[in-house]
Parts: sequence; C-alpha cells; structure tokens
Amino acid sequence: MAAPDNEKMLTELFAVIESRKGGDASRSYTAKLFAGGVDKIAEKLGEEALETVIAAVKGSDAELVGESADLLYHLLVLLAAKGIKPEDVFAELRRREGVSGIDEKAARKK
Amino acid sequence: MAAPDNEKMLTELFAVIESRKGGDASRSYTAKLFAGGVDKIAEKLGEEALETVIAAVKGSDAELVGESADLLYHLLVLLAAKGIKPEDVFAELRRREGVSGIDEKAARKK
Amino acid sequence: MAAPDNEKMLTELFAVIESRKGGDASRSYTAKLFAGGVDKIAEKLGEEALETVIAAVKGSDAELVGESADLLYHLLVLLAAKGIKPEDVFAELRRREGVSGIDEKAARKK
Amino acid sequence: MAAPDNEKMLTELFAVIESRKGGDASRSYTAKLFAGGVDKIAEKLGEEALETVIAAVKGSDAELVGESADLLYHLLVLLAAKGIKPEDVFAELRRREGVSGIDEKAARKK
Repeated sequence: MAAPDNEKMLTELFAVIESRKGGDASRSYTAKLFAGGVDKIAEKLGEEALETVIAAVKGSDAELVGESADLLYHLLVLLAAKGIKPEDVFAELRRREGVSGIDEKAARKK
Repeated sequence: MAAPDNEKMLTELFAVIESRKGGDASRSYTAKLFAGGVDKIAEKLGEEALETVIAAVKGSDAELVGESADLLYHLLVLLAAKGIKPEDVFAELRRREGVSGIDEKAARKK
Repeated sequence: MAAPDNEKMLTELFAVIESRKGGDASRSYTAKLFAGGVDKIAEKLGEEALETVIAAVKGSDAELVGESADLLYHLLVLLAAKGIKPEDVFAELRRREGVSGIDEKAARKK
Repeated sequence: MAAPDNEKMLTELFAVIESRKGGDASRSYTAKLFAGGVDKIAEKLGEEALETVIAAVKGSDAELVGESADLLYHLLVLLAAKGIKPEDVFAELRRREGVSGIDEKAARKK
C-alpha cells in the first residue's frame, strides 16, 4: 500500500515548500528560488523540463526518474510562488476527464 | 477532505493513460502519443513546459493551471511510455527529503 | 569562396522574411507566423530549439543541420516581428568580443 | 555598409570558438563548454533559447538582442563541438529557398 502514502507526500511536500517562503535564501534552496521571483522559477522549471527531455531520449530510467522528480518539485514551487494550489491543477485534470474524457485535449487542440 | 481524492486521481489517471497503449491513434490523443514513440512524447513534454513557462511569466492564473495540467499529463504519458511508475518519482522525492531535507538539491547541485 | 555568399544570404533571407509581413497566411508559412503574433513565434522558436537539442544529443549531423536551420530561421522571424535587425545582434556579439574578449560571458555570468 | 562586416564576423567568431577547443577551461568560458561535452552544450543552448523566449514575450528589445546573441553564440559552439560548419546550415537554408521558396517548411511540415 505504498501508493497512497507516496501521493499524500505531494500535499505534504507542497506544504513544506510553502513554509519556505520568506526563508533564509542562504540556507534553503527553496527559499532561494522564492527570492528569485516567478520569472526565475519559471526559467528553472524550463531547464528541468529540458533535462527531463534529454534523460527520456537518451538517459537511463534512473536518470529520468530523477529529472522527473526535479521537474515535479519545481512545478510545485512555481505554483506556490503564484499562490496556486496543486489541487487546482488536479481539479483541472479531473474536469477534462469528466467533460469529455481523458482525450479531451485531442478535441481542444485542433 | 478534497486533497486525498484529488491525488488519488493521479493514480487513476495514470491507469487510464496506460490503458491507451496500443489503442486506436485516430480516436485517442493518448494512443496517438504512444504511437509516436518516446522521443516525440518527450518533445511534446518540452513544448508543454514552454507553454507553462510563458503562462507563468505573463499569463493568468487560469492559464497557468491549464498549462500545468497539460505538463503533468504529458509527464505521466512519458513515464508510461518508458515503463516507469509515478510511484518511483514520488519515492525519489521522498528519498531526497529523507536523506537531507527538501533542500537536498542545494547540496547536490553545487 | 562559398562562405561570403552563404552569409550574405542571412541578410537576404531576413529581407524576404520581412517582405512577408502582412502577407497571405494561407499561402505563406512566414506570413502565418507573423499573423500569430510575437508570443506564438517565440513559442515556435522554443520548440525548434528543443528539436535542435534532441538532434544534437542523439540525431545525425544532417538532422542537426536541418534543425539548426529551422532555429536560425525562426530567430530571424522573431527579430523581424519585434522590429529588430539581425545587425543589432551581430553588433552585440562584436561588442562583447571588443570589450572583454569572446569569453566575456564568463565574467558576466558569475 | 555595416552588414557585410557584421556577417563576416560570424565566420570570424566561429574561427575563434573553434580555436578554444582543448583550451584552458578555467580561463575560457568557451573552452569550458567544449570540455563539458555535446550534451551539456545542447542543454545550455536550450536554456539560452528559453531566456530568448522569455525576453521576447516580456522583455525589452535590448534584452532580446542580448539573449539572441547568447543563443547564436551557443549554436555556433554546438556546431563546432559536432564538427559542423555554419556554412552547412547556411547552405541548408539556401537549399530550401531554392527548392521551393522560403515557405518550403509549410509543405515539409504537414
């Protein structure tokens, strides 16, 4: 039954991330990200996505797992910096599934 | 208590995504992604990250939520295409937190 | 002596690109890009960069040449859309070299 | 008649870049890039493209010029690392124009 615990961790992780807002940037990587502002965090998210892409096309599974963790983590920091809850993103994913199925995107993007 | 349900959705969403492997690419966007192969899915993930970055630096909150949902969705498809479970990514996030705290990355990346 | 001709082509190519502003988007790919606006062109540039990265890390030389041509082309379109001349970018490259050598960037970025 | 000089600079810049191969990575940013290998250079190109995109959608013209210069510079380093000449990219751009006009890409990409 590891899955539920693993997922609950996302909520806990987001809470920890939020607690770093305004923290000491010299001691916390997360506080340093917040201090840099939304644009810098967004750029960092883009860099992590780039590393995820490279890992996917030529890296090992372990590398892809590591880069995916980095990507997910920076996405949570970006949402926190904008005052958005991960639940809003989950709700959006569910809304799409509810409205027109998981493949709703196929219709939405011509 | 919306959070647990929202998160449980990630697991369910991943199961639905996996069920589209080998499906009809003309009817399912997800099946079409799988048919394109890992490199194409990775490229699509990179494009969604780019849209997330643009939404973060100049879009509305609603746009960022929408792009984040797209990004998360394509990350799940990429993991599925590589035979990796989201739980592996969650475990990696937890491992880092356990080993050296959420700011472990600060130490890892000089 | 192919090099001078090849390079003169950049100026000519930029002139052709500029001439497509306001053109028929249904007949010209470049006119369609302009019609989409700066944000869409910038996103397209990002996508071409992503394809260049993938070609570099795992493609053939021919693929990298093709993606680099796409990247350069979309950079010219982006500059044209913003009313910037390629000469301004060349001047910036020269200024850096003049001020502190080609490795000026090393000093500029800590 | 600044244009020809500006463009000749691309060839000269590429020659300077090539001369840094195997140089002292502690003193030259370019030599450090080469020492990092193709994958790292490609990733850096992707990061510069990301900064170019952000500058285009919300920065000043001066910022876009600066980021475009960075992007062009790192593209030259990437080509040099792969043993490809900029002339090959220019020839590809000309070939497309010759074969089917500057908008050949419209046909090439469905």
